[in-house]
Parts: sequence; C-alpha cells; structure tokens
Amino acid sequence: MKQKRATAIAPANIAFIKYWGVRDTTRTLPYNGSISMNLDACLTTTTVTFDENLTRDEITLTFYQQAPHLATGVARERVVVHLERLRALAGTDCYAKVISSNNFPSDAGIASSAAGFAALTRAGVAALGLELDERQLSLLARRSGSGSACRSIPSGYVEWYLPSTEFDLVQWDQASYAKSIAQPEHWDLTDVVAVVDTNAKKIGSAENHRLATSSPYFATRLAEIPDRLAAVREAIVQRDFTKLGQAMEADAVSMHAVCMTSHPPSFYWNGGTMNIIHAVRSWRSEGLEAYFTIDAGPNVHVICETADSEVVAQQLRQLPGVEFTIANMVGKGTRLEEPTTPDVE
Amino acid sequence: MKQKRATAIAPANIAFIKYWGVRDTTRTLPYNGSISMNLDACLTTTTVTFDENLTRDEITLTFYQQAPHLATGVARERVVVHLERLRALAGTDCYAKVISSNNFPSDAGIASSAAGFAALTRAGVAALGLELDERQLSLLARRSGSGSACRSIPSGYVEWYLPSTEFDLVQWDQASYAKSIAQPEHWDLTDVVAVVDTNAKKIGSAENHRLATSSPYFATRLAEIPDRLAAVREAIVQRDFTKLGQAMEADAVSMHAVCMTSHPPSFYWNGGTMNIIHAVRSWRSEGLEAYFTIDAGPNVHVICETADSEVVAQQLRQLPGVEFTIANMVGKGTRLEEPTTPDVE
Repeated sequence: MKQKRATAIAPANIAFIKYWGVRDTTRTLPYNGSISMNLDACLTTTTVTFDENLTRDEITLTFYQQAPHLATGVARERVVVHLERLRALAGTDCYAKVISSNNFPSDAGIASSAAGFAALTRAGVAALGLELDERQLSLLARRSGSGSACRSIPSGYVEWYLPSTEFDLVQWDQASYAKSIAQPEHWDLTDVVAVVDTNAKKIGSAENHRLATSSPYFATRLAEIPDRLAAVREAIVQRDFTKLGQAMEADAVSMHAVCMTSHPPSFYWNGGTMNIIHAVRSWRSEGLEAYFTIDAGPNVHVICETADSEVVAQQLRQLPGVEFTIANMVGKGTRLEEPTTPDVE
Repeated sequence: MKQKRATAIAPANIAFIKYWGVRDTTRTLPYNGSISMNLDACLTTTTVTFDENLTRDEITLTFYQQAPHLATGVARERVVVHLERLRALAGTDCYAKVISSNNFPSDAGIASSAAGFAALTRAGVAALGLELDERQLSLLARRSGSGSACRSIPSGYVEWYLPSTEFDLVQWDQASYAKSIAQPEHWDLTDVVAVVDTNAKKIGSAENHRLATSSPYFATRLAEIPDRLAAVREAIVQRDFTKLGQAMEADAVSMHAVCMTSHPPSFYWNGGTMNIIHAVRSWRSEGLEAYFTIDAGPNVHVICETADSEVVAQQLRQLPGVEFTIANMVGKGTRLEEPTTPDVE
C-alpha cells in the first residue's frame, strides 16, 4: 500500500487592510491589495495522506473542543476541489485522507478558512513531493477560494499584492500572491480578539465578496486603498503604531460602510461591537493606545503593543457584551510539522 | 410701556432624507434637499415679547420637567442673533423677552433646535406685526442656523428644496425653503422614538455639518440623493410604505457612513442603537413592517403605519438598552397659539 503523507500548521491572520470584493471568482483575484499579521495563537493543523487504496477523498475536521466529524456538503466540496488542483499539479489521481483541527474556537469570528486552506495547501504539496517556493505556495493557497489563505503562508506581517498592470486574468493569476513585509520579531504587537457573539448568523464569504461591488461607496473605498496600503507598509517598517492604527481603523470602517450600503446591506456589528468601538476610542483619549479592526462579523480585534495587551484584555472583558478574549502575538507563516514521510509500503 | 407679544407652537421633525453638510454657513444653505415629517407630540412653545423697557434680550428656556433658566453663552447668542434678523426686518431696535419650553425630553435625541427656531421665528414675526407668507417664514427659520427649522414651518410631510440652479448665494438664499408635500391626514404614519442613551456626549451641529465634507464618501452620498428624494416624494404621494422605508433607511445609513468616515470620524450609534437596527430588520422579515432612521445621536426613530405603532413600541421597550419610547403621529406645522396682542399701554 502506497501512502504519501505530510502535516502542516498554519496561522489565522487578521487584516489591517481588508480584502473585500472579488474581481475574478474562479481564480480568487481581489479588487485591492491587503496587509495582515499572522496570529500566533490561532492555528490549524492539517495532515494530508494520499493513499492509493482510497476510493474517494475523506475529510475529517475537528473543531475546537469538539469531536472529529466527516466533512460533507459545501465544506467537503471546497476541500475536494482544492485537492483536485494539487493532484493536477502532481499528475496523480490518488485520493487523499485529510485530517484537520483548529486550536481556536470556530465561533470566535477568526476566519478559520484562511488557516485551513493554507495548511491544506502546504501539507498537500509536501505529501505529493512537489517543489514549490513560497510565492508558488501562496498563489496556490489563494486559488483555494479562500483568498486570504495566501496571506497565511509567509511569516509575520504580510502583504497580498495586487498586480500593477491592467486587469489581465493570466498575468494577475501569476502575480497576485503574498509576501512578508517583516518577520514577527521585527515588531511586538498583539491582537486581542474580543468575542461578543458566539451565535452570530453567518453570511457566506462568497456572497460577501459578490455584494461588495453593489455598494455605491465601493469605488471610493478602492480609490482610498493605495494610500492606506502605503501608510500601513511604512508604519510596519518604521514601527509607527499611531500611523498603523489610524490607517487600519479607517480601513475597517470603510469596509463596513461598504457592507452597510450594499444591496442588500449587511450589518455585522452588534451592541457589543459598538461598546468596544467606543471604549477603544475612549481609552486612546486617556492615553492607552489601541485600535480596532473588524472582519465580516461582530467580534472586534483590538491591536495594541504587546506591553499593553494584558490591560487591554482585562478592560475588554469588563465591557457589556464581551464573552471572552483571545490574545495573539505576531505569528510565523505556514510550516510543516514533521518531515514528509517517504513512500511507505 | 409698549409691548408687542405673540406665542407660537412648533413641532420637531424627523428627516426621511437627511440634511447633512452645509454649503454656506452664513445663510444655512445645504448641499442637498431633504424631506421630513413633523412630530405631533414633540412641541416647543415660545412667547416673544418686544418691550421698549428692556435693556437687553432676556431668554428663558424651560426644558422638559425642569425649572426655567436664563439662557447664557452660545445658546443665548444664537437666539439673540436671530432676534437681530427679525428686528432688522421690522426696522426696530426694541429688545425682547423670549420664554420657550419643550414638552419633550431634551435628552431624547429629538432635535429641539428645529422646533425652537421655528417657534421663535413664527412668534417673533407675529409680535413685530410683519406680514410674511409660509415661504418667507420658512426662509427666515432656515437662516436661524438651525437649517431644519425651515421644515418645521409647513404642515405634515415637508420638503426642503435645493434650488436647481448653479450655486449662487443670493438665488439660493431666496429659493431654499420648505413646503408641504402632503398634510398629516393624507397618510397615517407614526414615528416611535426609542431612546437608548440619555447621557450621550453631544457633538455640536455646526461641527457636524463642517465635518461632513471631510468624508471621501460625501460626494457619493450627494450623487445618490436626487433618486432617494424622488422615491420618498412618490412614496408619500402614493402612500407606498415599502418604498418610503427602503429609501429612508438607506439614507440614514448613508449619512452615518459619511459620519464614520469623516476626519475625525463620528460614531453616533451605541450598543442599544445596533440592537434596534437588527431588531427592526428582523421584525420586517417576520412581517412587521417598520423602518429605522437615526439622526446625529444614538436614539432610533422607528417609522411604521400607525396601526402597528403600539406593537412596535412594546417590542422596542423589550430590547436591551432601550430606556423609553415616544410615539409621534404626523403633526401640523408651526402655528400661533393665540391671537397676537395689540399694542398694550
């Protein structure tokens, strides 16, 4: 029996400049560049085993503190489609067993699909013995459909590039990947995730990205982004927390302004979200420098210098509506957990 | 002793299409037209007495359930400046005693300055024996600085016009007034005001209007408004509640998107505000048709057909963060309470 196996660990990431709106769905090409930091405490571990004895792909997911379950429906389908990409690259038709688990609550509003598809990509490529560099891994993770998975591949502070050429599917497909701006040890920031609602209704992310362009404000958001990307890039290089925070907060608000003015609109914030927005702004006026960012959900990521993270977390937990917090320092990118096994009989 | 006295009653109003951003501060000329309904239960009563024995203007304000107090500082200054306008029109330099009281909580987030300056204008004009028609009264109320006061002059559903000419101060000053679209009895709607925070920090409205243009989204908002004004106008004429509600809600969200993206940004919503936004949207999906609108504060105006207003008010009061509600049907415009007194010795 021939098996090829590898295990990868991938971090979730939080975007300072958001990916919002997909320009080409098939290749997951965005309308704008984005910048994120990897989260060192929110990880997905995935083992992929290609096995000639299998008659179909078997995908087992283990959510935080839950029993493993076989993926079905759309969740299964997305993984199978990505396995097909890997098989096509390797020229094989061997089915795979995928075992994937998260070490963070799946209801924490931390996008788990980015970590999941980054880990799947890295483990699958290693198991198949493909020789891909970081750029190629990032491109491949992007094509999974969870675009921001490409940002979980490189280490630390990461930018997902938008090609500077006119839109051309083939050129963009090759040029839209993510790369480190700085390693984790360059700057000691912490993302304190404040979870305000573990029962939020979810809107699928494909639907989100389709709706973005229906907002009359979307074009204005796109026009603003190059300046904000430049500010965030500079802020990271210069370790200028105020510059980072201002650009980051403005970008999150602009993304949500687009959501709230889409057709139909999406209101991701809830009462707890607003309490945190006001608290963070008020703390700043009192000298505790922290900034919020919010993805497509009600939970709030409060970014601060690590020296302030315990105070921030304590204060967040005292706000009405906050259920718990998860502190993340800046994390490494996706890596293999153990050497790829050689072919085993 | 020569006295000239008159008393006027003016309604507050709630805008379906918001006035947001002032094009000319001196004359209070807006960037966009707006449409509102008068609130029949939120009234200001103002008595103006021009008295030759006075050596300065005396302004006494009585807030809801509070003792009367003499206005000082900016509050006094705004009234005095408007009295100067009236005196200039009448060719007199006689000082006035102004006694004004609200029958609604001043902390309810219902703009009291619109009702206040509409009542001051109507009473002052009557006391001075000036012959002004509704259009002239509306123009004069607008110039008070509280622009939306011009919408409290005519009755029922009211539009504040934006001249269709290129911007010309003198032309616009004469053409930017408010006029009824329909009388109160035309359509039986109710505004249930849900008060979520009686301690909100206030940002002055002059500051608000100045900040509006600092949002990169302001131009997009302006471009959207003519279609929304047309929709609301038609909806009122046709009594089409769905059409009214959709345009009204989109306009409120667009105004707040502008606020949140201004430099610096303003976040008027709080936890209770978000709870109401989600509740109203959820009630609609269950068949209870109501729509929200929000001025520059956290309280929410929930507009419904009057047949549904008790249910809406009861459900609002059960939401976390809602302190109390005030129901308003569509109100008449500003009127004199009693005949103007003749000159009295």
